[in-house]
Amino acid sequence: MTEEPIEAVYRVRAPAAAIRARVEALLLEQTVELPREALRSAFALEHMVGSVLSTEEEGPGCYRVTLAQPALSAAGDPAQLLNVLFGNCSLQPEIELLDVRVPAGLAAAMGGPRFGISGMRKVADVHGRALTASVLKPVGLSVAESASLCGTLAASGLDIVKDDHGLADHPFCPFAERVRACLEATERAAQGTGRRTIYVPNLTGSPRTVISQARLAGELGARAVMVSPMVIGLPLLHELAGGLGMPILAHPALGGSLRIAPSALLGKLFPLYGADAVIYPNFGGRFSYDRAECAAIARALRSPDSAIAPAFPAPAGGMRVENVRDVLGFYGADTLLLVGGSLLGAPDGATLLSRCRRFVEEAHSFPYPP
Amino acid sequence: MTEEPIEAVYRVRAPAAAIRARVEALLLEQTVELPREALRSAFALEHMVGSVLSTEEEGPGCYRVTLAQPALSAAGDPAQLLNVLFGNCSLQPEIELLDVRVPAGLAAAMGGPRFGISGMRKVADVHGRALTASVLKPVGLSVAESASLCGTLAASGLDIVKDDHGLADHPFCPFAERVRACLEATERAAQGTGRRTIYVPNLTGSPRTVISQARLAGELGARAVMVSPMVIGLPLLHELAGGLGMPILAHPALGGSLRIAPSALLGKLFPLYGADAVIYPNFGGRFSYDRAECAAIARALRSPDSAIAPAFPAPAGGMRVENVRDVLGFYGADTLLLVGGSLLGAPDGATLLSRCRRFVEEAHSFPYPP
Repeated sequence: MTEEPIEAVYRVRAPAAAIRARVEALLLEQTVELPREALRSAFALEHMVGSVLSTEEEGPGCYRVTLAQPALSAAGDPAQLLNVLFGNCSLQPEIELLDVRVPAGLAAAMGGPRFGISGMRKVADVHGRALTASVLKPVGLSVAESASLCGTLAASGLDIVKDDHGLADHPFCPFAERVRACLEATERAAQGTGRRTIYVPNLTGSPRTVISQARLAGELGARAVMVSPMVIGLPLLHELAGGLGMPILAHPALGGSLRIAPSALLGKLFPLYGADAVIYPNFGGRFSYDRAECAAIARALRSPDSAIAPAFPAPAGGMRVENVRDVLGFYGADTLLLVGGSLLGAPDGATLLSRCRRFVEEAHSFPYPP
Repeated sequence: MTEEPIEAVYRVRAPAAAIRARVEALLLEQTVELPREALRSAFALEHMVGSVLSTEEEGPGCYRVTLAQPALSAAGDPAQLLNVLFGNCSLQPEIELLDVRVPAGLAAAMGGPRFGISGMRKVADVHGRALTASVLKPVGLSVAESASLCGTLAASGLDIVKDDHGLADHPFCPFAERVRACLEATERAAQGTGRRTIYVPNLTGSPRTVISQARLAGELGARAVMVSPMVIGLPLLHELAGGLGMPILAHPALGGSLRIAPSALLGKLFPLYGADAVIYPNFGGRFSYDRAECAAIARALRSPDSAIAPAFPAPAGGMRVENVRDVLGFYGADTLLLVGGSLLGAPDGATLLSRCRRFVEEAHSFPYPP
């Protein structure tokens, strides 16, 4: 009764005459890390060595290779899974990780999104339309300024206002005071709007700090948090999701430079490790993903091929009040729309409020299901 | 009394006509994340916005750009420092991080190697020559097989025997039993050799698991541990180093694919976060670094430009018994030589023992200082 294998898809660049040997080396590198002839352990040969499922030529000297690795090699461990997928071969520039599929047992051990799309909709009490979000920035605002901005954004009817991912426990805007003040600001705004915007604090630091920030955020009444999994470490996202009891938004900082396809890293691994919504650079913004990449990320999040819950795509950037409906036409309404700079560039609070209201109206009026 | 800034050096690809604007955008992206004209906070403008120290043309459309970012932006936080250096701009393929210099205050907050070269020499009681090390692999060995291999390697007189980085708490070789058995194997070998080889367990998993493995390893008598900082998260390395009381070897898994120069990631950031010895792919092996890159990593580790202790370069791969002295000729004797596959490919235990003894003899006979 062996568990189904982990499937990993790579792009491998090698001359045709060498591809067979290159793929064999890749297969062994990720688990036993010795050539087959040096394996004198029968157990290792039988249970740790995977197999090559397919090698397809994509172009001259460029192959799409699918490996099956024993689920046992990952030991149900969120760190070791990364080693099996892209540990040592990350050091080999001719290798890219394109796709990942984990078997049901490992997916269950990893946990996946604990809230996902349906759980986040319940927490936000938003059904039948896209979620709208904006962000507290620039870093450098005081607690009072952050809370004031948070209050204005909440008053516009946004569903979510999140910290910038670069907001840490800075001395000019300490975490505990900021979270308390921003939650109060959303309470006050709710008296006008009739619905309480979810303020999402950014958790960052060493694991000890992140865990204690999470606890404090919960005690103060936060209903969701954000982390940057590549900055704090994917295994900490996994640990956090296991005991948090509220949705986690994941930010892609530090994650873009890996030779891992964004649809695999952001679309598959982030939710596998517990993200309920995944922020990624939308097409048309100041980052580099094109429409096809963005569509692939959204598809992977909403239709997981492992036994985990669907997660929200949260495209950010490249959005203005004027094109919200076009963006929703592209993604459909099971989307968390994150608009930052194009709103926050407003010259004053009144303009900011009216811009945000228009953004919210545009998003609310988009038909669902699309 | 403002602290000295963090200096970050990037390669930026942009047309000459656009480079000025591109560098301004990079400068702001990493801290305030809004265009200058949208910054309505005087504090943010004055204290969060860094400056461009230099922009040098390396070639057509390719520039070496040095930025000074306010130390305050990192908040003395090991996660937030990564954001300031390479958070959002990791998502922009035209940007590479080439070098990093942190001011003394931030270096002190980060801690650096707690043992470094001199502390590791004391722990190993090795002075006046290079340290020698090998590895327990393949993954798939049982506890008894691991301990037996560890005993053979220790009997050859190696200073260090470490776990493979892919060894987790696998059911066929559980962490606690493995560590206990391997430490006992080094004890037994010491009765023959007169000196006790340091067995280095690999810590991996979520932060909670890693911290509990570290505690257990210490209780069982381990004198050093290994982690893969990019797999478990650099901030966890920082947390671990703060309270561990023994040297930490750092493995580069998952770190190779970042658009960060290896000399910056492995040579500067790993020790800044607390690594006492840094393993990296040696030239001539199955990985991609060339001699110049390897020399730059070793130089950065041994001669830190921030106020932290020097750390051991631990080149791995591309080494055989026959070229140990050449490798030491290249690096000098303040080196931790890690030889794996070329020893472990031995057809039997007797051959393995004699090969390891030759490796040890070659390393011991290299003159110091070179």
